[in-house]
Amino acid sequence: MTEIRPRNLTREGFAPFGDVIEIDEVVANQPINGGSTQRFDLATATISGTNAQVQISMARAKPFSLPYELKMVERHPHGSQAFVPVRPARFLVVVAPDENGKPGMPQAFLAGPGQGINYHQGTWHGVLTALDAETDFIIVDRKGDEPNCDTVTFDTPFSVLA
Amino acid sequence: MTEIRPRNLTREGFAPFGDVIEIDEVVANQPINGGSTQRFDLATATISGTNAQVQISMARAKPFSLPYELKMVERHPHGSQAFVPVRPARFLVVVAPDENGKPGMPQAFLAGPGQGINYHQGTWHGVLTALDAETDFIIVDRKGDEPNCDTVTFDTPFSVLA
Repeated sequence: MTEIRPRNLTREGFAPFGDVIEIDEVVANQPINGGSTQRFDLATATISGTNAQVQISMARAKPFSLPYELKMVERHPHGSQAFVPVRPARFLVVVAPDENGKPGMPQAFLAGPGQGINYHQGTWHGVLTALDAETDFIIVDRKGDEPNCDTVTFDTPFSVLA
Repeated sequence: MTEIRPRNLTREGFAPFGDVIEIDEVVANQPINGGSTQRFDLATATISGTNAQVQISMARAKPFSLPYELKMVERHPHGSQAFVPVRPARFLVVVAPDENGKPGMPQAFLAGPGQGINYHQGTWHGVLTALDAETDFIIVDRKGDEPNCDTVTFDTPFSVLA
């Protein structure tokens, strides 16, 4: 099995695939509410299709352990999809570049406490992969009339290392 | 000063003003990812106006203490607005019914650990009011061309009790 070594999740490294949702003083921010709150605008939820809307959901995800056998990826052609843990937690983020409508070589990132992600519309990615403990996440993604999930199963799984 | 005693935040009590974003087995949920994750669809982000999109932001909010002097409320005519803490935390939620375009008598709710809220589009509400400690929140709301914040300052402040 081809092995994939995860990198720490950074805004720069993840930029081809999506946004990192994390408070970062480098990002333009604005004081609101008379200065009691600092606000950081980090991502846009994009949607397409018929009767498309952005929904806010939660997920309770069982943990996986590393090394993790990556058998498939999926993509949502009609919308971006964000995942943010609601308590400090690590999780595994797997993405792949698109190559003529199929996923290319996967890449893996380790999201650390305080980090969430927003997959850009149509980005190939793995399923939600909590680590260490059962983890609750906020999801922000698209609902609408058309089917919105393409999946590809790899001929040979990849092994995502610890 | 008129005193307001906060109630615990429940889906039923908050229904006239918005959604409670909380995992609740009573809500219809669906297994995804081969059963490793349970998904709960809890709220819809609504938007209107020109070049309107849903954005995902974070806020770092200084804490307030109770009793809290409620001087004003605001509303966003062009979009819903969600706040979910990214670690277990309490926060104060103040809303008011609309009475002919002005806020009526405010009501207060105490959100507990594991709870977030989504104000329905146009709902009068207080500013983000963390309690106990500085708290980071996910915000899901609308960006677009038109101004999107009406504020009303009360002639006499209210006192929100502990």
